[in-house]
Amino acid sequence: MIILGIDTALRCTGYGVLRAEQDSFEAVDCGVIKNHKDLSHTQCLLRLSRGVKELVKTFKIDAAAIEGAFFGKNVKTTMILGYARGAVMTALAEYGIPVYAYSPKEVKASAGGIGTASKFQVAAILSSLLNMDVSKLEYDATDALGLAICHANKALRSGNEYTLPKPI
Amino acid sequence: MIILGIDTALRCTGYGVLRAEQDSFEAVDCGVIKNHKDLSHTQCLLRLSRGVKELVKTFKIDAAAIEGAFFGKNVKTTMILGYARGAVMTALAEYGIPVYAYSPKEVKASAGGIGTASKFQVAAILSSLLNMDVSKLEYDATDALGLAICHANKALRSGNEYTLPKPI
Repeated sequence: MIILGIDTALRCTGYGVLRAEQDSFEAVDCGVIKNHKDLSHTQCLLRLSRGVKELVKTFKIDAAAIEGAFFGKNVKTTMILGYARGAVMTALAEYGIPVYAYSPKEVKASAGGIGTASKFQVAAILSSLLNMDVSKLEYDATDALGLAICHANKALRSGNEYTLPKPI
Repeated sequence: MIILGIDTALRCTGYGVLRAEQDSFEAVDCGVIKNHKDLSHTQCLLRLSRGVKELVKTFKIDAAAIEGAFFGKNVKTTMILGYARGAVMTALAEYGIPVYAYSPKEVKASAGGIGTASKFQVAAILSSLLNMDVSKLEYDATDALGLAICHANKALRSGNEYTLPKPI
């Protein structure tokens, strides 16, 4: 099962492509899609949409996991984060990829068993699960891999203590 | 000049296609894209994106005008409105259509000369400008035509008292 985790934002979006089997996880690719501060909102959304479509085509993605919490410093940043998520969700929908949303707490709980784990603890557990040093990655890429692992745990182990949520 | 006005929302998006010349406006098409409440967010965004692309292809749109104010009853509705706008903006960007954003106050001021005009007053003025009875249209379609007229006034009369804003 190939899962695309995406930690979306207008200027810097992390992504992680995870090959997940019942007992092993492999990070096939990960990185960030950056948008220069001089680009207009619309230009950023187009780059984001194209980047996601490229990943879907390259890695034959089965499902996507995005950050689903509703929050924002203020109404403007919330709306702009919404723009970026809308562009990403639409790109995934064009390829019929089911999109699942997880809160940061769910991701931490899934990776480390504790919803209150620190960024450092989560990084250590992800490094162990993926057999690679995630501390060298950009934070947004690590967060995206965390999202993918969260979904893998729900998808591969549901029926057990995990339950797969409805796609959004 | 063909201008597409779009009053975006996840469940009901109004659109209006305006042919604008220096001294005359014609509503070429208008209506709403509705999404059933049972559709997922992602399905709504896909329908919205496809609907906008269809309009762009059918009417050879030169520019688009959207509602640009940042507001929301709460963080969740703001974010979801952001999803919808993001899908629309990305669809327009794919066709290289410049997107301009106007606040409700700017639209009212442009249509009626007064930023505080009532919905009824705006409808009466739009009816006069378009030589049609807009009171029979759905509100969202009327609002979309208002956005298109607002942009037409800025685009065709800039250099005068109007100034064209930067595309978003």
